Amino acid sequence: MNREKIKEQLSEHFSAWEELTETEQEDLLANSQLVEYKKGVNVHGGDTTCAGLIFILDGSLRTYMLSEEGREITLYRLRHGDICILSASCVLSTITFEVHIDAEEDTKALLVSSSHFSDLFEANKNIQCFSYKLATERFSDVMWAMQQILFMSMDKRLAIFLWDEIASQSAQEKPKLHYTHEQIAKYTGSAREVISRMLKYFSDEGIVTVSRGDITIINKPKLRSIIA
Amino acid sequence: MNREKIKEQLSEHFSAWEELTETEQEDLLANSQLVEYKKGVNVHGGDTTCAGLIFILDGSLRTYMLSEEGREITLYRLRHGDICILSASCVLSTITFEVHIDAEEDTKALLVSSSHFSDLFEANKNIQCFSYKLATERFSDVMWAMQQILFMSMDKRLAIFLWDEIASQSAQEKPKLHYTHEQIAKYTGSAREVISRMLKYFSDEGIVTVSRGDITIINKPKLRSIIA
Repeated sequence: MNREKIKEQLSEHFSAWEELTETEQEDLLANSQLVEYKKGVNVHGGDTTCAGLIFILDGSLRTYMLSEEGREITLYRLRHGDICILSASCVLSTITFEVHIDAEEDTKALLVSSSHFSDLFEANKNIQCFSYKLATERFSDVMWAMQQILFMSMDKRLAIFLWDEIASQSAQEKPKLHYTHEQIAKYTGSAREVISRMLKYFSDEGIVTVSRGDITIINKPKLRSIIA
Repeated sequence: MNREKIKEQLSEHFSAWEELTETEQEDLLANSQLVEYKKGVNVHGGDTTCAGLIFILDGSLRTYMLSEEGREITLYRLRHGDICILSASCVLSTITFEVHIDAEEDTKALLVSSSHFSDLFEANKNIQCFSYKLATERFSDVMWAMQQILFMSMDKRLAIFLWDEIASQSAQEKPKLHYTHEQIAKYTGSAREVISRMLKYFSDEGIVTVSRGDITIINKPKLRSIIA
């Protein structure tokens, strides 16, 4: 991707871009690099701390919390045009927690080094404002995920239901169930919308695939891990 | 509390205060009112939406999520000198979730109306920046709470709760707390039976003694060791 194309992308997706001076724009480009994260690679957290500000050009990054025992909780996903700020959380003094970020697909991005971003952040009030605002968007994403996960612990209830149902098909690697969301809601004491949303979540997590009236379990160990 | 005293408080705890023009300061005071929330009163969420920006002068506000079945998850508490921004979340377009805020004690506060705060927010970039930054502090608080709730075993959560609660009584060798198991369950996002069982365990371990409505911490180092 050439320089002009990158500038175009920044201008389109980075709302603070136009508020930078021409020198600041040039400096930012000079301190950025095009990177490619292979699917499954850890981008931030774990061994890599504070990678920098990441402009996603293509692919998908998944942000999650990790317990000491290795349990993961997906918080949100970012895709083309999104900017990942928590990979530069060391620059924002008010962000005192750590998350993990993995490439969920092969991902191309523009990475602004933390050290340069830090300098720019200190020098430019607009960038500060932009960064905090962006972080509050992620706050909203996280709260949405928490609503899903915490209440009813519906993920667990649904997982238990599915697990029990496939018990009779234990020989099959990818067992298939024939239920409407309405039926599952009835059996688990929930609401249809909740089941649909939760199946969507399971689907995003690669646990099931859902097609009209069919639910196929594609990752049994992962389904099991939710119950445990 | 007189006007000068209020200005003093604002100057001390409201970091954007000095960045307001004199007119903006006067307007803010003119559009504020001293309020008193009785213990247990709902301040925001439920019937009251977007109360406004709340400067806590005395007392304590508890922010929590509420499930459809009425289960509460405490996210954080704010006290004297803190500013509550989520009670003015309607002003911040990036905050798309709802929380509930209750007075946990009799609480005195200065309330800036949402409509005035909204005008100021639109007119003054410093206030925007301040507000987003403040919201990211709450983001950190929430992530901390989530770590507790999602990943920690209940003994650790209960120990942290007790430890935080006795912090104000640090001089006492055997601090005493007045909570029902039901209340603790509510504050820690657990169930009453779980708390009762866990307190029994703590009691057996010689960490606390439990009598009707009273929990006395008799071995602080041991309580501390559960958290570490």
